[in-house]
Amino acid sequence: MPTLRDVIAARPRVYRYLRPTPLYQYAGLSELIGARVWVKHENHLPVGAFKVRGGLNLVAQLSEQERRAGLFTASTGNHGQSIAYAARAHGVRATIAVPEGANPGKVAAMRGLGAEVMFHGADFDHAREWVVGLASAKGGRFVGPTEEQLIHGVGTYALEIIEDLPEVDAIIVPVGAGSGACATAIVAKAINPGIQVIGVQSAQAPAIQMSWAAGKAVTADMRTVAEGLATRVPFENTQRIMRKYLDDFLLVEDAAIEDAILLLLEHTHNLAEGAGAAALAAAIRLRQRLAGKNVVLVLSGGNLSADQLRRLLARTGAVAAAS
Amino acid sequence: MPTLRDVIAARPRVYRYLRPTPLYQYAGLSELIGARVWVKHENHLPVGAFKVRGGLNLVAQLSEQERRAGLFTASTGNHGQSIAYAARAHGVRATIAVPEGANPGKVAAMRGLGAEVMFHGADFDHAREWVVGLASAKGGRFVGPTEEQLIHGVGTYALEIIEDLPEVDAIIVPVGAGSGACATAIVAKAINPGIQVIGVQSAQAPAIQMSWAAGKAVTADMRTVAEGLATRVPFENTQRIMRKYLDDFLLVEDAAIEDAILLLLEHTHNLAEGAGAAALAAAIRLRQRLAGKNVVLVLSGGNLSADQLRRLLARTGAVAAAS
Repeated sequence: MPTLRDVIAARPRVYRYLRPTPLYQYAGLSELIGARVWVKHENHLPVGAFKVRGGLNLVAQLSEQERRAGLFTASTGNHGQSIAYAARAHGVRATIAVPEGANPGKVAAMRGLGAEVMFHGADFDHAREWVVGLASAKGGRFVGPTEEQLIHGVGTYALEIIEDLPEVDAIIVPVGAGSGACATAIVAKAINPGIQVIGVQSAQAPAIQMSWAAGKAVTADMRTVAEGLATRVPFENTQRIMRKYLDDFLLVEDAAIEDAILLLLEHTHNLAEGAGAAALAAAIRLRQRLAGKNVVLVLSGGNLSADQLRRLLARTGAVAAAS
Repeated sequence: MPTLRDVIAARPRVYRYLRPTPLYQYAGLSELIGARVWVKHENHLPVGAFKVRGGLNLVAQLSEQERRAGLFTASTGNHGQSIAYAARAHGVRATIAVPEGANPGKVAAMRGLGAEVMFHGADFDHAREWVVGLASAKGGRFVGPTEEQLIHGVGTYALEIIEDLPEVDAIIVPVGAGSGACATAIVAKAINPGIQVIGVQSAQAPAIQMSWAAGKAVTADMRTVAEGLATRVPFENTQRIMRKYLDDFLLVEDAAIEDAILLLLEHTHNLAEGAGAAALAAAIRLRQRLAGKNVVLVLSGGNLSADQLRRLLARTGAVAAAS
């Protein structure tokens, strides 16, 4: 199981390529929640998401043979961009499999970061299975979404939170595969077990939360619009860590996540993707429990497309009125 | 006239409260311009704009008497928020005058930062004159928008650019009162006179550009939607610096600035206010001259309201198609 020591060891590998992200308090959000509310701006990172920290930590530790053979992964989202970014930073080739018909904007983003993007299969699972085989045939490293070295790198943001705000009472973190929540919980509990670490997933993709609550693997429908929260089956290693360390784990409706995207836009002038806004949606639900506390919302990523934003804004009138 | 030495001296005062902002290269923008294009993310700062650097440098140097009497300024925008932020960081009171009917969202933002906001007069000039008198009566310091200590602080972003990208060929910077352009030019020319520093203002508020081009003070209409570029009369000190150091100074139409806001949203997932997007609008105009070069666009601020963004997005179809 990853430890604080692993996270501390990851720091120089991560900070070779990026700077700590800001933790800002917002008066408008604090008033809304009735607490002192800070936002951890992981959307300010390269590729706009926290995952790049994990990619940088992993790629820095490749063997010479692995460097030569390159990295292989399957992703249509932030994981793929993060691996592409980290691979390029280290001069390693990255091959990323996506299903036929994958979002052209995201494919272009990964290609813009120098990755080779290959289309294969009708859905994500087919693309992944295929690229696992390809990696094996070429002697390269396949990188799954919850590898320990990724969690170690991601944990650097949790350390930054506690260094910037030692008096933090609660950290709310969105859960997709669980690397962010695991990393945050491991760091927070090692430093101060009194810090509440609360996970949040979409009620429209509840497999990870239901597995956590049931204490065993549960699969569930996946219909969320928040790509970063869209998981159908639990990962064994992150489940084990979350069961040990998470204080709570909520589900919020996609509609509440979309409201939170607009509230973040209004109060912070930052663009959040659905996963990035989920922590605010959870905080709104937990108002009473959080009252008067020092609360950190992890804005895990900002990769919302202009089209998604246009639709959201068109749907709503003045956001201020809704809050 | 401010010098590189002043900017270097400002750094510890600025970095006591904030971290350097990222300079990211974007493949999509690079392709669009036909150059290697980086964005300097001043929108990632507290209060979402570069000006906070100047405020922090100025407030750190107040005399005991000035600290006790407090700061006074007039602003409906980023200048006011920056002074409010810096004053609170240093435990100094800030009084900010705004005209009757000032934007409630911006007033709330300044109050959220702890400033006392006072409404006075029918327009900005009346509010300013009144608060200058109030400052004088109370023995406090009135802070205008182009004071040298502000320029010294703002220059820290230009130093960051050159440290992160020593091979930069051109920096494009939006001009409102001129503090950002002056600070950038002073730093760049002192380190490498070969770096082109190019200012940009809105054609719908061209007074500063026209004064620069004419070599004498010119006033002009001010109808731009970009509040950060909205100046009607030139400031003597920034004109002197810009005449000495700026390589070029363009006007771009508000419509081109609005397109640039959408392009930044699409390619970087960052929200830019009009002033913050003006550098991209200028780069699009200068494509031929910038071809193949290392170009930095200063995204000076991100304070666009959700309503402004909603209107912009509603007006347009798919942004990608327009690019």
